[in-house]
Amino acid sequence: MAAGEIVIRPLAGIGEVGEGDDLGRLVMQAGAPRDGEVVVLSQKIVSKSEGRLRRLDEVEPGAEANELAGRLDKDPRIVELVLAESAIVIRAERGVLITETSGGWICANAGIDSSNVGEDGVVALLPVDADASARRIRAEIAAAGGGSPAVVIADSFGRAWRLGQADMAIGCAGVAPIDDWRGRHDRDGRELRATEIALGDELAAAADLVRTKDSGVPGAILSGLGHRVTLGDGPGAVALRRPPTEDLFR
Amino acid sequence: MAAGEIVIRPLAGIGEVGEGDDLGRLVMQAGAPRDGEVVVLSQKIVSKSEGRLRRLDEVEPGAEANELAGRLDKDPRIVELVLAESAIVIRAERGVLITETSGGWICANAGIDSSNVGEDGVVALLPVDADASARRIRAEIAAAGGGSPAVVIADSFGRAWRLGQADMAIGCAGVAPIDDWRGRHDRDGRELRATEIALGDELAAAADLVRTKDSGVPGAILSGLGHRVTLGDGPGAVALRRPPTEDLFR
Repeated sequence: MAAGEIVIRPLAGIGEVGEGDDLGRLVMQAGAPRDGEVVVLSQKIVSKSEGRLRRLDEVEPGAEANELAGRLDKDPRIVELVLAESAIVIRAERGVLITETSGGWICANAGIDSSNVGEDGVVALLPVDADASARRIRAEIAAAGGGSPAVVIADSFGRAWRLGQADMAIGCAGVAPIDDWRGRHDRDGRELRATEIALGDELAAAADLVRTKDSGVPGAILSGLGHRVTLGDGPGAVALRRPPTEDLFR
Repeated sequence: MAAGEIVIRPLAGIGEVGEGDDLGRLVMQAGAPRDGEVVVLSQKIVSKSEGRLRRLDEVEPGAEANELAGRLDKDPRIVELVLAESAIVIRAERGVLITETSGGWICANAGIDSSNVGEDGVVALLPVDADASARRIRAEIAAAGGGSPAVVIADSFGRAWRLGQADMAIGCAGVAPIDDWRGRHDRDGRELRATEIALGDELAAAADLVRTKDSGVPGAILSGLGHRVTLGDGPGAVALRRPPTEDLFR
């Protein structure tokens, strides 16, 4: 690997994960991440390891879920789960349900989805606190002898104004999710006043390039980013949340 | 490079670019991209090669620009340029001016910015049609003997709900900006109904990881994505625009 280069390798061979599995140890066995590397894991494998799967036939939709589901042409049981996982409904129109999750993320269906969960009639919820998950997995990797790579937990979110989903960080440990250039200078010595790079989200997006939705590859390991990896766990992906008072699109 | 890996290398050594420069030839000399690779270029170097710089002391703000600038505490000459480059003002409050550009992108300040333009009192506008720019640069690279790598033109955009900017595609040629999984199946054979990956944006974000705002690195070359590179130029980044009728956040 030449200076300045980044290499992204798929994290393959982990297999199905169940509640309580030591995900850090599994990551270590499959991908052997080293100090200074960044491990990006899909939300789904983390949710599985944390028992965040729900059987739809055990969900009893309430009145609000039934009303919303009818209006949006959605499964009322999924809408019930979305509402239970959410603090606020942001938009509910044209078949789209966007909420702010209890964890503070604004996304469609509270991040609940049914693909690649391994069983019909079962859906995966987001981790309760993906920053805590990232810290735990980082510690598990270290305990399994893997040094202390950064850990980012990623989910695919839609975006206002743009089609398609891009992977973004919902949890991280060992990397600052925002690279703040405000007050620093450009190449001509001019002060940068608004430049804050959403590094956590760019890491998540980059990792997604080596995955496909049918590959069973639940993550990736990025090398060449040693200068980004911190000894401490840092502020977590919570630092990527725009405060409501600064948000013009709620 | 192992199977399934992606390597991102910085595109260094291009130096200052002026209007009319053959950017494809310069990219070829600096980075020697090959068939099956993806060249990601910052909007700024493309704008410079297309003469899209403006001197602020030649801008005469009109009444609307003066009013908005006063209200938002911005330079009225920049606001005048933003309005001239825009079709619609989306939000103008709390010091933030978000518009839909004439080219169809929704972003702050119509993508106009003053960092790394090489001279005080000069700002860079977005390319008029960055898809056309990408096609032109792709053809220039081929003419310079560099085969036919894909070309993506990237700019840093802020996002609703999330802090920080992430690089996104505003132009592309030789790669489908949306990887549409709708109707295809997950690993368990379940049909995916909503999965469309914003591949163009993920490429742009990944390339940004090898750049810093003071490095003079105007882009990156990604290897390992040969299966993504198409013979034809394809639909362009315009395919990433969410149509107003499907957009809940205007």
